[in-house]
Formats: sequence, C-alpha cells, structure tokens
Amino acid sequence: MRYELYYWPSIQGRGEYVRLALEEAGADYADVARSERGMAAMMRMMETKNGTPPFAPPFLKAGKLVIGQTANILFYLGSRHGLAPKAEAGKLWVHQLQLTVADFVLEIHDTHHPLGPSLYYEDQRSPAKKRTGEFWKARVPKYLGYFEHLVQHNGGFYLTGRRLTYADLSLFQIVEGLRYAFPKRMRAFEPRIPGLIDLHDRVASRPNIKSYLSSDRRIAFNEDGIFRRYKALDL
Amino acid sequence: MRYELYYWPSIQGRGEYVRLALEEAGADYADVARSERGMAAMMRMMETKNGTPPFAPPFLKAGKLVIGQTANILFYLGSRHGLAPKAEAGKLWVHQLQLTVADFVLEIHDTHHPLGPSLYYEDQRSPAKKRTGEFWKARVPKYLGYFEHLVQHNGGFYLTGRRLTYADLSLFQIVEGLRYAFPKRMRAFEPRIPGLIDLHDRVASRPNIKSYLSSDRRIAFNEDGIFRRYKALDL
Repeated sequence: MRYELYYWPSIQGRGEYVRLALEEAGADYADVARSERGMAAMMRMMETKNGTPPFAPPFLKAGKLVIGQTANILFYLGSRHGLAPKAEAGKLWVHQLQLTVADFVLEIHDTHHPLGPSLYYEDQRSPAKKRTGEFWKARVPKYLGYFEHLVQHNGGFYLTGRRLTYADLSLFQIVEGLRYAFPKRMRAFEPRIPGLIDLHDRVASRPNIKSYLSSDRRIAFNEDGIFRRYKALDL
Repeated sequence: MRYELYYWPSIQGRGEYVRLALEEAGADYADVARSERGMAAMMRMMETKNGTPPFAPPFLKAGKLVIGQTANILFYLGSRHGLAPKAEAGKLWVHQLQLTVADFVLEIHDTHHPLGPSLYYEDQRSPAKKRTGEFWKARVPKYLGYFEHLVQHNGGFYLTGRRLTYADLSLFQIVEGLRYAFPKRMRAFEPRIPGLIDLHDRVASRPNIKSYLSSDRRIAFNEDGIFRRYKALDL
C-alpha cells in the first residue's frame, strides 16, 4: 500500500514527525501537497464533509482510512513498521511519550506566538521574548530533563529500551529544531542532556534517516515552521 | 479491577475528562489524591524511576499498567467500557477527535497564561487580554465550528454517529467550562452551535453523569483550573 501524506509543502512543521517515521520505515509514500496540484488535492480533502475530516494537516491516507493528528498517525504507523511494540502496554507507553513530545512542540511554537496562532510574530515580539525566557528557564529543563532521564535509565539506548521507536525519531527532530531556532541557548544547554544528544547522533546516522536528511525530500528549517530562528529570542 | 486515578485534588483540570468517562461507564475507581495521604501517594508515583513514569498528572493505574496523558487514558478506557468502537478505524477516529479537543484545551488554558504556565496570571494580564480576544475571534469559531459540523452531519446525535463516545463527554465539559469562564462571550456565541448545546444537554441528563454532577465527587470550577473566570477576559 502506498501511503499519502498530506501536509503543508514548504515547512517541516508537525508533518516532519510523520515523514521521519515513514522514511525510517522505508515505507512507500507520496508527500502529496509537494507534488503538482497537490495543494488543491489537500484542500479538497480538508473541505470534505464525509468520513473522518481532519481538523488540520498533517493527515495520512492509508487505504480507505484518513487519519489526522500527528500522534495518532504515528500510533497507526508504529506497530505496523517496527517503530513501536505490538503489545498494548508498549504501544500505550510509546504513544504517551509522543503525546508529551506533542505538548512540548506546542510550547516551542508558542515561544514565537504567545498571543496565538492567528497573529504574526511581528505583532507579538515583546511577549514572545518573555515567553521564550520562561520557556528556557522552566519548560526546556522540565521536558528535556524528563526525556534525558528515560534515556539514561535505559542505559543510554533509546527512550523505551533497546529498540528504536517513533518517539526517538521525534526527539531527534526536537534536538535538531532547538539547535536551529536557538543556537546559543541550545549550545549552553546541551551539556545537561548528554543522553539525548547521543540519541540524536545515533538517529542521524541510521542509513534511511541519513539518506533522507541529505535528500531534497527534507525541507530546510525556515521562519514559517515550528522552529524559527529569531535573533531576539536567542541569547 | 478497581482503577486508580491520580490527579490534582482541588481542580477539574485535565483529570475531569477521565473522571467523566469513568463515571459514565460506572467504573470502579479511586480518585487517589483526594483521599487521605493521597497526594503523598501521587507524588511518590511521579518520582518513581521505573516502569512508565508520567510527565504530569493525570495518570491512571489499571492493574499493572500506569498510563499517562489524558487522551491516552481515554483511548485505553474507551473500547473497554463502550465509550469508543472496538474496531481500529473507529478507535482512531474518536482518538483523533479527542486529540483535537486536547489542542483546544491547551489554547483555552493559554488565554490566561499566554506567557507560559510558569508565571502567574497576575503577571500577564495584558497579554492574556489580547490572547483571549484572538481566541474568541479566530480559534473558538474554528474549533467549535468543526465539532458543530460533525454533530450536524450526523443528524444531531453524537460526534461520530448514533453512539456516545468519550469525545462527546469531553465536549460537554468544554461547553460547561466556556460557560463558566466566559459567561458573556459564550452566551453570545451559543446560537452558532445549536448542535453542540443540544449534545451538552443530552450528556448532562444521562443518569450516571447527572448523578456525578450533583455529587461531591464533582469539584466546582475555580481559578486554579483550565477554565477560569476573570472578568477582564470576558466581554
């Protein structure tokens, strides 16, 4: 079966967590909105009144299923492609971690959009600066400290043990993104999360991920996505 | 099996979505942190290094499982208690809707905490006012419009069809909460969501929910939870 991924064609955004899983799995998929007339196809899917209309991209067409919400898509893909256990307890645990990643991603987004997603960054520079300060003071240590602990407790392998899951791929992306958006702050913070940095490096060197990252299927970071490099928000 | 729910004892918060599901199901459960020495028990569970330590409450102990993240707990409970389909497609669809509710809940929280959860509301009154304005202008119509459409499209029954799911219980709570936090704004908005209001009323009159709401197991809304009544943020 060829999957169809629907996501905004010019950003990594939330779609990237799904792309990384599909790429690591070597799954056959089309990144629909990046192809000719793909945006029109995506908009038609979003306007449909029938079936299971998604609230927002990303969504995945898998045969007859149309699945929305990033973590839900990963839940569906995970145990089918060896990126999560097949047994219920393990599936729920990896999903729980992914939902915590999702919460963190939203807080990352809100560093540049504290007054909401409906206004431009330029209209909220001052609150963005305050929120970013709090984010690095209180939230980054809490989230990354939690994940670091899990990796360390597993002997420095993966979040949930000796096998890679989609949650590890997502943490790779978190490290990449924080390095892009906040190069100075992240450089200062990294000594506190050696396990996560090591995890990041091991994910980056996996053959399928390595090949993906150097392909043009990987969209570059930019100031329309979740991770944005605004000098005023770095140190 | 007697479930153990762990959540902050003095607020509805995110725990309420789980409480509503357990109550509707007539499940046997202890609301641990509300009992004597319960907070200490919860803190011990959160500090544990083994197993599947949760990032934050709520979490549910179900036999040997400890499950965190509200939507993940509901996913686990749903098909066991007739609050979600048992087949994969239906399970994923209800979960997708719950994850969209979760996104909305976070945006509701951010109306009074736009600069982040680590500062007091009193330290962010002015950005809170701006964020709340945007929230009611752009976000409430988008989220509630989406859910209203789903209810209407199903002939005015439930979100996903003729059977109640845990996502319907969560939408009941959203309507209750918005009425509490923003009485004037919500009164003005309600004519746009007749299907959701009708859904709310039908949920409220279900025997188990009705009995729960009038019991002391239901904590009253207050200004420590997700839904807070601040006059400056209403109209």
